Amino acid sequence: MTTKQIVLASRPKGKPVVENFETKNIELPQIKEEDILLEAMYFSVDPYMRGRMNDAKSYAPPFEVGKPITGGVVAKVIKSNVANFKENDMVTGNLPWQQHCIATAHGLLKIDTNIAPASYYLGILGMPGLTAYFGLIHIGKPKSGETVVVSGAAGAVGIVVGQIAKLNGCRVVGIAGSDEKVRLLKKEFGFDEVINYKTTTDIKKAIAEFCPDAVDIYYDNVGGEISDAVISNINFNARIVLCGQIALYNSTEIPMGPRLQPMLLTRSVLMQGFIIGNYQSRFPEGVSHLTTWIKEGKLKYKETIVKGFDKLPAALLGLFEGDNIGKMIVEA
Amino acid sequence: MTTKQIVLASRPKGKPVVENFETKNIELPQIKEEDILLEAMYFSVDPYMRGRMNDAKSYAPPFEVGKPITGGVVAKVIKSNVANFKENDMVTGNLPWQQHCIATAHGLLKIDTNIAPASYYLGILGMPGLTAYFGLIHIGKPKSGETVVVSGAAGAVGIVVGQIAKLNGCRVVGIAGSDEKVRLLKKEFGFDEVINYKTTTDIKKAIAEFCPDAVDIYYDNVGGEISDAVISNINFNARIVLCGQIALYNSTEIPMGPRLQPMLLTRSVLMQGFIIGNYQSRFPEGVSHLTTWIKEGKLKYKETIVKGFDKLPAALLGLFEGDNIGKMIVEA
Repeated sequence: MTTKQIVLASRPKGKPVVENFETKNIELPQIKEEDILLEAMYFSVDPYMRGRMNDAKSYAPPFEVGKPITGGVVAKVIKSNVANFKENDMVTGNLPWQQHCIATAHGLLKIDTNIAPASYYLGILGMPGLTAYFGLIHIGKPKSGETVVVSGAAGAVGIVVGQIAKLNGCRVVGIAGSDEKVRLLKKEFGFDEVINYKTTTDIKKAIAEFCPDAVDIYYDNVGGEISDAVISNINFNARIVLCGQIALYNSTEIPMGPRLQPMLLTRSVLMQGFIIGNYQSRFPEGVSHLTTWIKEGKLKYKETIVKGFDKLPAALLGLFEGDNIGKMIVEA
Repeated sequence: MTTKQIVLASRPKGKPVVENFETKNIELPQIKEEDILLEAMYFSVDPYMRGRMNDAKSYAPPFEVGKPITGGVVAKVIKSNVANFKENDMVTGNLPWQQHCIATAHGLLKIDTNIAPASYYLGILGMPGLTAYFGLIHIGKPKSGETVVVSGAAGAVGIVVGQIAKLNGCRVVGIAGSDEKVRLLKKEFGFDEVINYKTTTDIKKAIAEFCPDAVDIYYDNVGGEISDAVISNINFNARIVLCGQIALYNSTEIPMGPRLQPMLLTRSVLMQGFIIGNYQSRFPEGVSHLTTWIKEGKLKYKETIVKGFDKLPAALLGLFEGDNIGKMIVEA
């Protein structure tokens, strides 16, 4: 059968553009023994994919020019030569940007759409949710009464971090980039305060006002000057969870900023970079907590769903413009 | 009796000068019940004292203008109204810069000069030794075969860090500021390699050469560009122990440098600021290990002893010029 595929056409210099991608028609062969034919339903676009577009050493290998982009996908089984997977089963896995693809069972997970909508397995029940959970709980170690600041608060990870922090009895201050996001986070997601960094002239002062007892945990999704403002309000013995640096992903030179070490030293602060892969052996713990909270109605989620396979590159680029509220998903 | 005292005359702007200090003659009263009259033998001068000369919030309160500088002192008991302390007992404590002083038993520790020379209780068996021990063992968590880089390697803390890292089976690369220090650290203290940062034009490249498997633990005593060079060679899952930032202590503006978070994030690196006070409840563990290693001849130490009470300010300022090899001590 013929299907559509999106490949990396060229590596971006600085901010990526849609011309860095190319859509192709490809011919899929007949599936072999141990193969499964899948039809993609939902695609995940995530900030970390920007790093994979570079030819640089990182935790995830670079995408290859001329080869399809890969990422989190929810797909339906169309045909299967594997006993465990049947027609119409819904699965999730790391798959190519193709409308249809042939996969093996390796790395595919069946999902239960009675617990949550299928697309949630790319968000709150997938990598972003687990990233929020492990980063906040295992690195941040929130204690009741502490103040948690989360940047990128309206993003796929931040929106979960804030809610889990509230479930742990913390005061939660978010930082986001539009009045709509501010309103939503306060009204629907229980954030105590949210700062619109685009309309706030002195973010450092705003943090100081909203965090009178200083910042005990900073869950950082963005980096750059927003993080400088938070860290200048950091408390003694605070924890800084380095999850994302989206403000810097399109930098072509090494970004400069104030040296943090004197502050981290004199205040005995921990700063820990992490990727969710570090916690793979503990995923069941995270999934179990997240599922329970969702079932109990304690954890809510939000998605921005873009329709159309061809919109994948534009949706990915939109992450860097703050186009999404909650998880950015492309519906095939 | 009359005795000499050194007070903070004024707060420094940038690099301190001897004029920031003033030597006074003061009259000591008769000792009261529960008092002890002490004669100072050795004074500790330490980089952290620079911070206390500023009027800034930190882990240790600022020195007050017009009041004596205080710090680690080894002293002899001259007269005592406390049962536990007898004439000629040697003690250590946080005491004023005075040739004689009156203290209470609170915070005074008797020392055993059969284990090590009295001045060692201001160095390897005092705060610097404990700082080396807890920072390396409890934050760095060295594993056999790992590569440890220590800056300020010939200082009071660094010289101990390198030796404890060797005792833990690590490859140890030091950074120091003179050929004499380089020679000494390699020849007498067992460092595998030492970089003279004053004569090495490309420190980043030198670290890469001496650390072919990248840097697993960076024990940072200096900060600034030396630290940038080390961190650009940091390994995945590395630990950065923030102990000192002596290169920055005299800054009058917030120093700028490359933003570290993207590197710490993509390589899952931990950076932890600490002060030795955080480990107070575990001091016996540290003292016990250090004492055992010294008795067994596994840990050696080095001091730079300046003679004369009046030399205290100059000795403190000398720390920022790298005047010392090992612990800087002033003998009264």
